[in-house]
Amino acid sequence: MRMTARPQNAHQARLLRLLRDEGPRSRAELGDVVRLSRSKLAVELDRLVALGLVETAGLAASRGGRRSEIVRLAPGLRFVAFDIGATSVDVAVTDGELNVLGHLSEECDVRQGATVVLERALDLLGKLREQDLIPGAVHGTGIGVPGPVSFREGIPVAPPIMPGWDRFPVRAAIGQELGCPVLVDNDVNLMALGELHAGLARAVDDFLLVKIGTGIGCGIVVDGAIYRGVSGSAGDIGHIRVDDDGPVCACGNTGCLEAYFGGAALARDATEAARSGRSERLAGLLGDRPALTAEDVATAAAGGDPVAVGLVREGGRHVGQVLAGLVSFFNPGLVIIAGGVAGLGHALLAEIRSVVYRRSLPLATGNLPIVLSELAGSAGVIGGVRLISDHVFAV
Amino acid sequence: MRMTARPQNAHQARLLRLLRDEGPRSRAELGDVVRLSRSKLAVELDRLVALGLVETAGLAASRGGRRSEIVRLAPGLRFVAFDIGATSVDVAVTDGELNVLGHLSEECDVRQGATVVLERALDLLGKLREQDLIPGAVHGTGIGVPGPVSFREGIPVAPPIMPGWDRFPVRAAIGQELGCPVLVDNDVNLMALGELHAGLARAVDDFLLVKIGTGIGCGIVVDGAIYRGVSGSAGDIGHIRVDDDGPVCACGNTGCLEAYFGGAALARDATEAARSGRSERLAGLLGDRPALTAEDVATAAAGGDPVAVGLVREGGRHVGQVLAGLVSFFNPGLVIIAGGVAGLGHALLAEIRSVVYRRSLPLATGNLPIVLSELAGSAGVIGGVRLISDHVFAV
Repeated sequence: MRMTARPQNAHQARLLRLLRDEGPRSRAELGDVVRLSRSKLAVELDRLVALGLVETAGLAASRGGRRSEIVRLAPGLRFVAFDIGATSVDVAVTDGELNVLGHLSEECDVRQGATVVLERALDLLGKLREQDLIPGAVHGTGIGVPGPVSFREGIPVAPPIMPGWDRFPVRAAIGQELGCPVLVDNDVNLMALGELHAGLARAVDDFLLVKIGTGIGCGIVVDGAIYRGVSGSAGDIGHIRVDDDGPVCACGNTGCLEAYFGGAALARDATEAARSGRSERLAGLLGDRPALTAEDVATAAAGGDPVAVGLVREGGRHVGQVLAGLVSFFNPGLVIIAGGVAGLGHALLAEIRSVVYRRSLPLATGNLPIVLSELAGSAGVIGGVRLISDHVFAV
Repeated sequence: MRMTARPQNAHQARLLRLLRDEGPRSRAELGDVVRLSRSKLAVELDRLVALGLVETAGLAASRGGRRSEIVRLAPGLRFVAFDIGATSVDVAVTDGELNVLGHLSEECDVRQGATVVLERALDLLGKLREQDLIPGAVHGTGIGVPGPVSFREGIPVAPPIMPGWDRFPVRAAIGQELGCPVLVDNDVNLMALGELHAGLARAVDDFLLVKIGTGIGCGIVVDGAIYRGVSGSAGDIGHIRVDDDGPVCACGNTGCLEAYFGGAALARDATEAARSGRSERLAGLLGDRPALTAEDVATAAAGGDPVAVGLVREGGRHVGQVLAGLVSFFNPGLVIIAGGVAGLGHALLAEIRSVVYRRSLPLATGNLPIVLSELAGSAGVIGGVRLISDHVFAV
């Protein structure tokens, strides 16, 4: 494995993160923020230049005295993110400031196993390389997978929807392949980190990111950092009980949240409504296909079909019932709703809000915004590069 | 307000906490732990001696060379805790190592308001003073109250069961009265801190403390520190929904956990069982009194009364249903059950365990102990002195 340049002390780490998050800055501005004397700052910056992490770029406008030199992250720095979902794989390349330079997405069934799916991700990265987006080495790669992860080891642990991935050494394999530091995390955690970095949670220390995709998961941020729990399964809310006598869930219990809602449950209920003749519009969308999808429900609901709207509302109510309890327990400063099914939009959001605001503790909801993510499909990859850059830009 | 001696730098703070948690140590041992040279350690210890926080006490056994001097916290250091519950007030005095020197408890209805209840606590402290337990100044006081608290300001905020306490300046009032630093927190948070310091959670970073008293609350510890949420209401789980069509709750919703279980609900259900003739034993315990208590149910259950046992099991099931969701969400390393109703003992615990182990994510329960507190009534006061000593022994 190639050696990746890393900061050598806390001052250098702080300077790198500052340049990542705030962009190019003059020496004078940097000195103000990190509280180093001009000469000590010069020493640290010289070392970062020598490591190839930082470069100087002309002079800043005068602040009254001598014009100060502009410093920025080396333009050749590259971070990579693989965001592996249940049915898709996304690969993105960013510069050191985490600006997305290229982002490719493909449908891909995670059940094909680690070897096949990671090969697909590497192929997509190859395509980005062919676009000349990566001039030199990759500086670090962050990987999200749709299941619980031992974060320290970088391996999936007993992931229910990922046969063939259990304890597969994702971190070691990709680290060897790309010759760079790699971290692996749960995909929902990466989305939360993406929101923290570039989304609606930028100024929020404690928040929840609820992803409603095929299943339902939650990213938990405590004091500006991902909370993973003792086994790495924190936020796995899809099997929280809504009712004892609800539908049977894939996990074997009855009445779990995912048995009521999520992409899979929504497709099931919509297909049933189409077949039983309750909704002509859904029946029209179904045609000869074996089943409807969550997108079909979104289409029908947007077209005003009352059965589709009812399914969305009912789903929002069940998400709200579980979320209300979590809001009372966790007292977050913000809740963000994201994921494919979040595309159902404001009917879903309205129902979730209505239940949470009615059922959670008033003190916990007094200043609690519940919002839809604005990062569309990029929260996961942004979270991935944020995760690995935090790691690379640390002592 | 008198000035309280405080450490002046991080080394001194570290030394004080070490002596608090580990007891007297030789200079050689301290030097090994804090990684200071012999001469620098001597400088810091001399300053702590001059501040009256530390003293030397003879020579340690030889480790081969010259015998090293023993250092300990000044024996005159005193911390105080007020643990104010819904129906009781506890006051304790400890030395610097947080050994309880005196602990008094009285029945006291929190609804009498802040002035009356705090007066009672100060009276109890006066009785402890008369026992010559406090040779000089009090070094700091930690106060727990049964409701949400603005921790930064040290005032209760909209506490539902504490009329007359809303925004009462508890911290300022007691600080002025005792002339020492004061911190105020929710009583359940203090119990969790007590378990972290002296209970079953000593080696656990992330855990939950569920208190089942008149109501039901939860203390959340993340990475060895209390998690309070953005409004200080985190852990307020008493009004999490168990069912939509359950009993009406005092909060106005239906089917909240506290509407099903807790000291108040248990007394209600037991009294009903006694009056309706379903349980002769409960009827006998009721006699001419207006209502039974949770203790009566414990007595009847211990005597084998099937109705009382049924009430305990039913309660444990509802606690388990809510806790199962929180365990999936938070993935703690330990769950401790405490509070008056926890005195119902192993029948309650067995039912809670059964539901949590069946309904939570297997990955979250794989290594999850669910245990009864072993601190009896002292978790709150130990948490109080731990809280304030952490504050006083910090820079």
